[in-house]
Amino acid sequence: MAEVTQVLESLASQEATVAVAESLTGGLIGATFTLVPGSSRVFKGGVISYATDLKQRLLGVPGDLLRREGAVHPEVAAAMAAGVARLCEATYGVAVTGVAGPEPQDGQPVGTVFAAVSGPGGQVWGRRLSLKGSRERIRVETMDEAIDLLASVLKDNKGEHSG
Amino acid sequence: MAEVTQVLESLASQEATVAVAESLTGGLIGATFTLVPGSSRVFKGGVISYATDLKQRLLGVPGDLLRREGAVHPEVAAAMAAGVARLCEATYGVAVTGVAGPEPQDGQPVGTVFAAVSGPGGQVWGRRLSLKGSRERIRVETMDEAIDLLASVLKDNKGEHSG
Repeated sequence: MAEVTQVLESLASQEATVAVAESLTGGLIGATFTLVPGSSRVFKGGVISYATDLKQRLLGVPGDLLRREGAVHPEVAAAMAAGVARLCEATYGVAVTGVAGPEPQDGQPVGTVFAAVSGPGGQVWGRRLSLKGSRERIRVETMDEAIDLLASVLKDNKGEHSG
Repeated sequence: MAEVTQVLESLASQEATVAVAESLTGGLIGATFTLVPGSSRVFKGGVISYATDLKQRLLGVPGDLLRREGAVHPEVAAAMAAGVARLCEATYGVAVTGVAGPEPQDGQPVGTVFAAVSGPGGQVWGRRLSLKGSRERIRVETMDEAIDLLASVLKDNKGEHSG
């Protein structure tokens, strides 16, 4: 919670906004951002792209990438982040895709997760995770890592963006 | 959790799917559906339409309705439900809009919430709530009521829909 509040304050001080594209977390990241009163100042919303076709239709993830690599891939996460920022007209996009289990998916073992953050200049930062534990633990750790990735991007971008 | 599992099973037995449009809950309903392993069989995803402009741009809620009544209104909830079902190509749409607090919004007191479910034939069912307690309690009760509304619609529709 402390990190979420800090991220929201950092976005506000940069006059920036954020949107989320969530696959395995199903809405958990958005629910956590909006737990904080006043989050509407910087949190625009997002897309829960649980079904693979929504990643393509709503977020603009290339269909050939999804067919070639499946939904659990770093380029898919990057395209989701950029796509949701564009769709929601937000400064930053945060995206996660991965395997919460209990079954493997798209040839990837349970716990394989890709998080990505897209920034105002078209840059994208990514993180690959190999998580262990229950479905719920993998989802919560994915959320924590995605927010942490955004926090570190915002720290590096401090002062570079102004509107 | 018991009711969520039952709703997912009921959807599967009707060969139906569901999508969510979440405002004050910020993703909580989607996160709860997807906590259940195998939910991808019936849960397509949805839109976190926290910012009012996303209700109009992504979900097709009429702009004049939003300008006239604000975002916290039964017709807005109904349009969100129908809009997200259309957008995600789902059989049922579930939507919530309301005031989680701590401040009133659009002339409505804290705890005023509208939930809506849209069905395969274009019907929409709604529920008005007046909730008390903390921001988090209002959000969790909103989620419970929305899932309960879907459960009762599915119970009534049993056997009427087949694909």
